[in-house]
Amino acid sequence: MRNIRLIIEYDGTNHAGWQVQKNAKTIQEVLEDALCKILQRKVKLYSSGRTDSGVHAQAQVANFKSDTKLSCDSIMRALNSCLPEDIAIKKAQDVPLSFHSRFSAKSKLYRYTILNSKTRSPLARHFSCHIPYKLDIKAMRLAAKHIIGRRDFKSFQATDKIKRPSIKTIKNIFIKKAGDFIYIDVEADGFLYRMVRNIVGTLLDVGRGKIRYNDVKAVIKTCDRTISGPTAKPLGLCLIKVKY
Amino acid sequence: MRNIRLIIEYDGTNHAGWQVQKNAKTIQEVLEDALCKILQRKVKLYSSGRTDSGVHAQAQVANFKSDTKLSCDSIMRALNSCLPEDIAIKKAQDVPLSFHSRFSAKSKLYRYTILNSKTRSPLARHFSCHIPYKLDIKAMRLAAKHIIGRRDFKSFQATDKIKRPSIKTIKNIFIKKAGDFIYIDVEADGFLYRMVRNIVGTLLDVGRGKIRYNDVKAVIKTCDRTISGPTAKPLGLCLIKVKY
Repeated sequence: MRNIRLIIEYDGTNHAGWQVQKNAKTIQEVLEDALCKILQRKVKLYSSGRTDSGVHAQAQVANFKSDTKLSCDSIMRALNSCLPEDIAIKKAQDVPLSFHSRFSAKSKLYRYTILNSKTRSPLARHFSCHIPYKLDIKAMRLAAKHIIGRRDFKSFQATDKIKRPSIKTIKNIFIKKAGDFIYIDVEADGFLYRMVRNIVGTLLDVGRGKIRYNDVKAVIKTCDRTISGPTAKPLGLCLIKVKY
Repeated sequence: MRNIRLIIEYDGTNHAGWQVQKNAKTIQEVLEDALCKILQRKVKLYSSGRTDSGVHAQAQVANFKSDTKLSCDSIMRALNSCLPEDIAIKKAQDVPLSFHSRFSAKSKLYRYTILNSKTRSPLARHFSCHIPYKLDIKAMRLAAKHIIGRRDFKSFQATDKIKRPSIKTIKNIFIKKAGDFIYIDVEADGFLYRMVRNIVGTLLDVGRGKIRYNDVKAVIKTCDRTISGPTAKPLGLCLIKVKY
């Protein structure tokens, strides 16, 4: 038996997220169907974690077990020739049988892209969230400092998943401005459901002056989702890297 | 009478180019329809030049004459609220009556984006041309040196437009590599039909060793379109700036 790891890039715009669902086309499903076609048997893919509808990935990681004799390069080429243009395999490689895309991961890095300009951008519209009002980046950076660390992040967890364990370590939040774009990079050992988008929503509220940057400490402490900012739109979010 | 200049950004993927055509939706048409709706009368837009089907613009320039009392800001906001998401007005301003987007232009800057990697990229697919084979950038830069200058560029003109005056000045060609992307910036006082894409096609032939970089001099001198490289795909091309 082999364990094969895939690095996958996708444009999430027209997909209902990663995880298989009833009544909606998902990225996992498209990939499993393509693998089934190539390997002539059903295959279960294990990813580093699901991404929501509309969220993109530069390098999602997923692995599957198979006794195929095909080389990794052949599997990659065969997959790329039958996958739709918004999903591609960037790499395929054999890994030890013990490897699991989710449980072996040390950390994941997400990037949220904001277009901070008066007018919307046709060229960037699928990969950034347009914020027309002025943002105080200094305040956002100061707020981010309160978020970094090992904490209970229940305040940033989607309310319908509130019972799951919610202590995670955010290793870094890096906010960079380049022209009209603001990039918020968040690296953590794991993420709760909608955690990045809820952190970004809170940082945007700080940027526009609705929450004071020092109050973010209290927002986290209350463990109350209703106190933090709204969930930022999915289209600005991209899974950049999974570290092992 | 006023003369109003618009700076327009568009994603050309789903448009049949700039110029009004029979039986196809063009960007000029969509804009003129939107202006007609706002100003309550027919308006003719003059652009810096047309872009082909599938070609994008970060800052196309177009002007129109009108006796409207609306402020430029109001015109911009009204246009942006009725234009489709793949076209937006970035700026609207009054300019002297003598201004003409095409005839007043000193130069135009186009960027061609190449993704030079083994596998295709879902995230960059609409805005870059995927070239899977290795490219010799040094040779491409040396070839570009032969193209810069005031010359007869008939060799790079689409064959169906061969009778038009074909002497132009290419001010600069700048080839930059960033990760898997190669950017070819071409600035000229004017462009023949498909000239940038034919130059890029020729540079790609140099990059893959089909044309020697020193032979590009002869390619230009022959004034023969059949000797230069093929026309590069439109999706990698973007009009970056028009200088006045």
